Amino acid sequence: MDRILFGAAYYDEYLPTDRTATDMALMRDAHFTVIRIAESTWSTLEPRPGVFDFTHVDRALDAAEAFGLQVVVGTPTYAVPAWLVATYPEVLAVTDATDTPRYGARQIMDITAPAFRLHSERVIRALAERTAGRQHVIGFQVDNETKYYGAASRSVQRGFVRHLREQFGDDLDALNRAYGLDYWSNRVDAWEDFPDVRGTINGSLAAAFDAYRRGLVTEYLGWQAGIVREYARPDQFVTQNFDFDWAPGWSYGVQPSVDHFRAARTVDLAGVDIYHPTQSRLTGKEIAFGGDMARSIKGGANYLVAETQAQGQLGWLPYPGQLRLQAWSHLASGACGVMYWHWHSIHNSFETYWKGVLSHDLEPGPTYEEAGVFGGEVEEHAASITGLRKQNRVAVLVSNEALTALRLFRLETGFMFGESAGYNDVLRRVYDALFELNVEVDFVPFDAPDLGAYEVLLVPALYTAPQSTVDALRRYVQDGGHLVATFRTAVADEHLTVWDDRAPHGLTDVFGVTYNQFSTPDGARLAFRDGFAGGADGAAEVVLELLTPAAGTEVLARYDHPAWSGYAALTRNAFGDGTATYLATLTDLVTVRAVLADLLRDAGVWDWPQDLALAAPTVAVRRGTNGRGRAVTYLLNYSGSPVVLPAPVAGRDVLGARDVTAGQELTVGAWDLVLLED
Amino acid sequence: MDRILFGAAYYDEYLPTDRTATDMALMRDAHFTVIRIAESTWSTLEPRPGVFDFTHVDRALDAAEAFGLQVVVGTPTYAVPAWLVATYPEVLAVTDATDTPRYGARQIMDITAPAFRLHSERVIRALAERTAGRQHVIGFQVDNETKYYGAASRSVQRGFVRHLREQFGDDLDALNRAYGLDYWSNRVDAWEDFPDVRGTINGSLAAAFDAYRRGLVTEYLGWQAGIVREYARPDQFVTQNFDFDWAPGWSYGVQPSVDHFRAARTVDLAGVDIYHPTQSRLTGKEIAFGGDMARSIKGGANYLVAETQAQGQLGWLPYPGQLRLQAWSHLASGACGVMYWHWHSIHNSFETYWKGVLSHDLEPGPTYEEAGVFGGEVEEHAASITGLRKQNRVAVLVSNEALTALRLFRLETGFMFGESAGYNDVLRRVYDALFELNVEVDFVPFDAPDLGAYEVLLVPALYTAPQSTVDALRRYVQDGGHLVATFRTAVADEHLTVWDDRAPHGLTDVFGVTYNQFSTPDGARLAFRDGFAGGADGAAEVVLELLTPAAGTEVLARYDHPAWSGYAALTRNAFGDGTATYLATLTDLVTVRAVLADLLRDAGVWDWPQDLALAAPTVAVRRGTNGRGRAVTYLLNYSGSPVVLPAPVAGRDVLGARDVTAGQELTVGAWDLVLLED
Amino acid sequence: MDRILFGAAYYDEYLPTDRTATDMALMRDAHFTVIRIAESTWSTLEPRPGVFDFTHVDRALDAAEAFGLQVVVGTPTYAVPAWLVATYPEVLAVTDATDTPRYGARQIMDITAPAFRLHSERVIRALAERTAGRQHVIGFQVDNETKYYGAASRSVQRGFVRHLREQFGDDLDALNRAYGLDYWSNRVDAWEDFPDVRGTINGSLAAAFDAYRRGLVTEYLGWQAGIVREYARPDQFVTQNFDFDWAPGWSYGVQPSVDHFRAARTVDLAGVDIYHPTQSRLTGKEIAFGGDMARSIKGGANYLVAETQAQGQLGWLPYPGQLRLQAWSHLASGACGVMYWHWHSIHNSFETYWKGVLSHDLEPGPTYEEAGVFGGEVEEHAASITGLRKQNRVAVLVSNEALTALRLFRLETGFMFGESAGYNDVLRRVYDALFELNVEVDFVPFDAPDLGAYEVLLVPALYTAPQSTVDALRRYVQDGGHLVATFRTAVADEHLTVWDDRAPHGLTDVFGVTYNQFSTPDGARLAFRDGFAGGADGAAEVVLELLTPAAGTEVLARYDHPAWSGYAALTRNAFGDGTATYLATLTDLVTVRAVLADLLRDAGVWDWPQDLALAAPTVAVRRGTNGRGRAVTYLLNYSGSPVVLPAPVAGRDVLGARDVTAGQELTVGAWDLVLLED
Repeated sequence: MDRILFGAAYYDEYLPTDRTATDMALMRDAHFTVIRIAESTWSTLEPRPGVFDFTHVDRALDAAEAFGLQVVVGTPTYAVPAWLVATYPEVLAVTDATDTPRYGARQIMDITAPAFRLHSERVIRALAERTAGRQHVIGFQVDNETKYYGAASRSVQRGFVRHLREQFGDDLDALNRAYGLDYWSNRVDAWEDFPDVRGTINGSLAAAFDAYRRGLVTEYLGWQAGIVREYARPDQFVTQNFDFDWAPGWSYGVQPSVDHFRAARTVDLAGVDIYHPTQSRLTGKEIAFGGDMARSIKGGANYLVAETQAQGQLGWLPYPGQLRLQAWSHLASGACGVMYWHWHSIHNSFETYWKGVLSHDLEPGPTYEEAGVFGGEVEEHAASITGLRKQNRVAVLVSNEALTALRLFRLETGFMFGESAGYNDVLRRVYDALFELNVEVDFVPFDAPDLGAYEVLLVPALYTAPQSTVDALRRYVQDGGHLVATFRTAVADEHLTVWDDRAPHGLTDVFGVTYNQFSTPDGARLAFRDGFAGGADGAAEVVLELLTPAAGTEVLARYDHPAWSGYAALTRNAFGDGTATYLATLTDLVTVRAVLADLLRDAGVWDWPQDLALAAPTVAVRRGTNGRGRAVTYLLNYSGSPVVLPAPVAGRDVLGARDVTAGQELTVGAWDLVLLED
Repeated sequence: MDRILFGAAYYDEYLPTDRTATDMALMRDAHFTVIRIAESTWSTLEPRPGVFDFTHVDRALDAAEAFGLQVVVGTPTYAVPAWLVATYPEVLAVTDATDTPRYGARQIMDITAPAFRLHSERVIRALAERTAGRQHVIGFQVDNETKYYGAASRSVQRGFVRHLREQFGDDLDALNRAYGLDYWSNRVDAWEDFPDVRGTINGSLAAAFDAYRRGLVTEYLGWQAGIVREYARPDQFVTQNFDFDWAPGWSYGVQPSVDHFRAARTVDLAGVDIYHPTQSRLTGKEIAFGGDMARSIKGGANYLVAETQAQGQLGWLPYPGQLRLQAWSHLASGACGVMYWHWHSIHNSFETYWKGVLSHDLEPGPTYEEAGVFGGEVEEHAASITGLRKQNRVAVLVSNEALTALRLFRLETGFMFGESAGYNDVLRRVYDALFELNVEVDFVPFDAPDLGAYEVLLVPALYTAPQSTVDALRRYVQDGGHLVATFRTAVADEHLTVWDDRAPHGLTDVFGVTYNQFSTPDGARLAFRDGFAGGADGAAEVVLELLTPAAGTEVLARYDHPAWSGYAALTRNAFGDGTATYLATLTDLVTVRAVLADLLRDAGVWDWPQDLALAAPTVAVRRGTNGRGRAVTYLLNYSGSPVVLPAPVAGRDVLGARDVTAGQELTVGAWDLVLLED
Repeated sequence: MDRILFGAAYYDEYLPTDRTATDMALMRDAHFTVIRIAESTWSTLEPRPGVFDFTHVDRALDAAEAFGLQVVVGTPTYAVPAWLVATYPEVLAVTDATDTPRYGARQIMDITAPAFRLHSERVIRALAERTAGRQHVIGFQVDNETKYYGAASRSVQRGFVRHLREQFGDDLDALNRAYGLDYWSNRVDAWEDFPDVRGTINGSLAAAFDAYRRGLVTEYLGWQAGIVREYARPDQFVTQNFDFDWAPGWSYGVQPSVDHFRAARTVDLAGVDIYHPTQSRLTGKEIAFGGDMARSIKGGANYLVAETQAQGQLGWLPYPGQLRLQAWSHLASGACGVMYWHWHSIHNSFETYWKGVLSHDLEPGPTYEEAGVFGGEVEEHAASITGLRKQNRVAVLVSNEALTALRLFRLETGFMFGESAGYNDVLRRVYDALFELNVEVDFVPFDAPDLGAYEVLLVPALYTAPQSTVDALRRYVQDGGHLVATFRTAVADEHLTVWDDRAPHGLTDVFGVTYNQFSTPDGARLAFRDGFAGGADGAAEVVLELLTPAAGTEVLARYDHPAWSGYAALTRNAFGDGTATYLATLTDLVTVRAVLADLLRDAGVWDWPQDLALAAPTVAVRRGTNGRGRAVTYLLNYSGSPVVLPAPVAGRDVLGARDVTAGQELTVGAWDLVLLED
């Protein structure tokens, strides 16, 4: 694409009057290029079974066409109509939590229910047929923020048992053994005795059920995409709006209920929704995290921010400058478009205070005005910013399976209950430290074929992985990679059965350590070797493994603790042509950053953005090569105070419209950016 | 009435032995005048279906008669007998929370269930017939603390849908439009498809369901009152015991489940139950709040404190002096009687530690003794204290609908979930500030016909109101009133649909402000105009609306905040013959009090009680005109230290039995009062 | 027994491979003497109904025999197989909490369900028959940590009603009266109308239901023991593994769901499981508490620690020295054996991180090594340590009924809900103070026949007791005993009906006090009489009763509080030949300890361990007489620092292998002990 997609979700259905002409004119004036329609609106599209009403769809399409806007058409299946549930109650998902679900919210259906599939298919076909022929329809979004919604009906469970039966070749003994079902008499000796999985205390079984259900999401998205592709033109893309673990109240980490790497194969373009705190809590981390993930799951391709906040929910109203900075930040991570959820604030129902570009008065306000500034800029400078590609030297290995496992065997309790930091907390600690060091990363899955493409590979808390991944990590180091793993890596096999040899399984020689004791912190702190981690002295958090290093292993830190001072906390080992570093406890962000800084220096991937990170901590650097092959450098200031710094590289100050020499003094304004093009 | 009703609920049913003669003698000695009987005792009154046993009722009536006590007879329907539920399980309310209710507690019935109505009617008739002819029976209480108990059975929901059908003239499109049901495919296109309302995420629908169920309470009380009136003599009153929002653990604010203004029409006398902390947390605020409400819902008439605490629950044992001060406080607010719940502490079951006038040893103790002191005083000084009328210049507009709306669209989250201050917190902040300024108020409902009777009208967080109320507020200011409204006023119409014009809807010219941005505080503080609010500088709490004042609007405060300092936080505008003040954020009690003090001064309603409030903060002033037409002034000291002050008015020190000249030094003892009569 | 039982639970069933020979060799090397097998393993023992598989049982038995280990065989009924529940869903207990239980965890069955009993009996018989003849099988454990699991099915409830009917001689009026069911119309006038007890708000009824269900546990254990005894040889013991109230996350206090004194009659040997924090939170209190209880419920006999932690759950990994100190501590309390749960850490399922003697690598590690040290010591010194008997002068009266009552009428709320300290918190405050004073105690039940055997009797919060207990306490003091009771003693009869005479019921002359007012602390502190409690000045906690002392009663403390300073807080009264002390509030541990110290001095039971407690607070003293009739003294140092002290008695330093004279300097190492034998 030769321009940035810029726009918003548009719901003519929810507007008090027909304002399409007014709205599209406002959008055009703000340099919007695209709207998304129809998503969630099944009950207006098909008010009665089989009776279709395209009033709103046509009206929005016609108006968009008239004002030169492109359109993404969303299938409406995210929310089911009352008539569907009234007719087929089984469409409501019986879940892990309840046998008596109630109608009302979105995302409450069993995506495997035949009645849901039958009616979904009919409405998808009707909508695709109606819209695919319109020239300005550039793509389709199948469903929205799809997950499995905790579905655990009898039919879902029977599907799961059938899946197990296939996986284990009908061998129940193998299943009992692999999962340890003998424990507490959970053994199953006849397939027909398989109990309701929802009550299980067996972590292996529970994890397998979750993994199976993530598979249902992939299958479901593929099914929708297949239907849509029967209608779509070759130039029309199919996308999904992937979202992230929603914690503590925003896009936080790896999505537990979807395997993004697998599900992304079903679509042409990764769409993503990224929501985050603003005001005094705007840091750019969520934007970067979500962007890196969206880019990585489609192999480095540009992605569409299908939803992000305009005014957002209460407390997210952006300060002047923030909305524009956020939008540029998405582009800096490799987005090919930024779309707000949503155009107009809704006047009732539920998300009334998740506010759009327009407030309830439907008049241009500060948010609209600032969006227009961004729109004008990206229109003007499209050639500098489209087609951004990254060439990252560092990767982070992420795992849905480890995430699930650490919900079932929690880091701080060991059980499937109790307050505890989780997988995403560990991942984010690592990621956030890298962000603060201006280290750009790709994410890779546990079965990535090409780890060797990266000079440094970070592996946070990979609790569970098959032998093949353990072998791949060994090969990675052998072949010269710099591996940095944390506590709780290589603990269990793919069935969540803890390995019964020395820990970390299969890697004791690679890391040059082993341990068979671990506990909670009990006041321990990290005591670094002189000269390492520059004065950081973080307290141990969450868990500490008591490492015994082998001869020759570098001990970078020990524990400062009355009982555990004899054990190592951070070690590095030369193995083959590479190095393997093991961090045996979690610690605060400042300390993790100091540790990673020294490791990255030693690994030879330290560059000027890292120096800048230390000199100007509020300025994030994002880099890449644009569509016309020029290097671009973003300097993004997440702060209410301007920052003055020497230009790190020479180039064209695209927004300032001047040339800059390296070392020349640059001012990056409050909540502002500088974009340099080579 | 020419004397104060003073007494307690009396349950012969729960006593270990027949002590009626002993108890009535003790009551007589303590100058009690009345007992309430029979409430809650259905299972003793009708142990088996249709078999009535009047042993306890007769025994209590006979003993009361013998000792010169009057009696209020309560219908026993607050708690249902086991046999009723065993026979008709549908009597137990299926609720918002559960489909499988269990028998045990009180207030667990579906007040619309035919079996409940049939059997209620029979027992009410039997009891009324038995007791109405007794000379010393002065009135009847129908049911007790009635609410709808979350009832949401199929039949209740069908009633609700029928109600909607009538309200919308059978026009489903109108309903879908009014409530915004298109959102998330919630549209209903056939009445028979109406889903279980309990799952709805649509705030308009949820609010309508609650309002409908408040209507059921009014209907039910009217039904009971109608039955009782077939038996009652003209001199016997019918009352209900209204109670308040129970938060955090006492009578706190507007009752969410009953529309007190409407329900009060069904009875002759407003009864009310007022419970509150004592000991070091006794402030008088709950007594005043509950009293002002009870008086207001019957147009200024005296009301009966049908229940208040003797020793109360754990932690409420009154310090010496507090019980008497509390009782006098009720009279100072306009009560015509004070009745304790309850006479004797119960020896088992559930409310064993909600202790009565007598402890479990059933002997006179400190609480009994102090009650007797009060009883003697009110008997002696009846002519000075009965028939109190208020002539308040200030009113506070309250709204059940706004309360419900702000549970569904919470102030701090915007959703129907999440921790947030609620309507009653805002109301109480305003009310408590007025109390601390000795400003006495009446409460008025959103549809009050006579706002013009008040010089100042305070409108806290009137989130939802029909156009007619918006118009009434405009007229009120136009005609010379001083209107003080807070944030979140005039946001939505009566269906909770946010107005789609400029905010505050229909009043931008009245207040001289508008806003289309609002957020959470994010550290903002109030920065007052020089000379306003006397040095107060409260932090913004809960929500802040970013006001843009019109030319000519007085900006009384702006925000002190890095991003929002350009916006006003408190404004006043001259409009017509009056003024309209808008407070765009909540702030601490001290600051609200300082703001209101200056506003009241400027509005010309400042008087000596307000000066006294500043000089002697623990002394509350309550005033009125007694039944013989004389002005009375209460000075109530909510403190463990005596206060010395100059007499604010001349008059008879009723309890001190001496005449006082204005300015003469008066001592108001610890937890004591002075009552002056003109 | 002439040697200490030392071992672990062994689950061949859960091991990844057959390691029996390896494991037994390791055990032998660590001086283990015994394993427990088969408990919980029903599904491997009987994989299909009626098909038994003794592979694991035989393998473990054979290996144990080969390596000279003894075996305790556990019946496997703690966890039910999937096939049993699939066939008979009623085996899953419908509970207080749910009508829709799910299969998965252990302890989820209705122990009264006929299908459960039928199948339990079959597997118990099969196992007992298979194993009883093996010479090295020394005993059987029936079930494990048995409770009633909240079972409240229709059949359990019908049993309960039948029980009430018998208890009250079919007299419903008597029941209604005894429980106060008239309250809130809860009266039952026909047995067939008895409502689902789970909804009751009547504390008497709820307590009776819990007591009935504790009776089911006793009956069930007796039933299992009876079956096993049909097979067991006379030299084989029958035991149960009793456990304690699990709060906040370890063995904390009296078990609410089992009457240990009654249930212990069904077995020959009391087994017990004791789990507790370690690391910086290891104090020895839980070990002592659990041990004193296990010893007391079988009249002073030695008991088996059937389960205690090796590495335990996360956060309990012992510091070097702690595992050994813990094991010795059990012996010091009178244990005849210490068995770990469990031998090997489990690799999956649920308790994966409740780690055993071996870590997941199944290799000897620090925990194994330290266990072996202990094993060697006890093997070497068996004659000094076996057969320990106590001659305690102090007893603590405990009551399941009071525990239940104070859940229904909570100390800080008065209701059956709300945050509150409970019975065990009061008990533990008293017990912990005694522990810190090195005062060893026995526990006695409310109906103990021989209170006179003790010089001092402590009675914490005995809220409910029959008249006979009240009479026994009176007699105890009359006859010369020193009684120390706390607040909330003698409040209610055995039906939880509060006595309606002066409090404390039947004991006002014994204690020389009465009260009819009580409240929460509201800032009160204790103000001791000069010279009493040595400078302690604790804040009142939880509740304060306002005592009025009789003439002649010593007032040891009053309340320091603005309103309550006239009331006594701690009193002592000479009555008959003894004294009766009443503590009317809870206070901090330091203050309770100071109070008890002075009371014990005055009662004449102060001895050198009490002096040592003040001089060396981390060193606990436990004493007794060993099997060969010699006095033994344990000095146990719960601290990471060594303690030097003069030998309190002369004797043989058993572990140091030297003789010690009284007064000679002794060093008790960090987390170490000295054992002196006379």
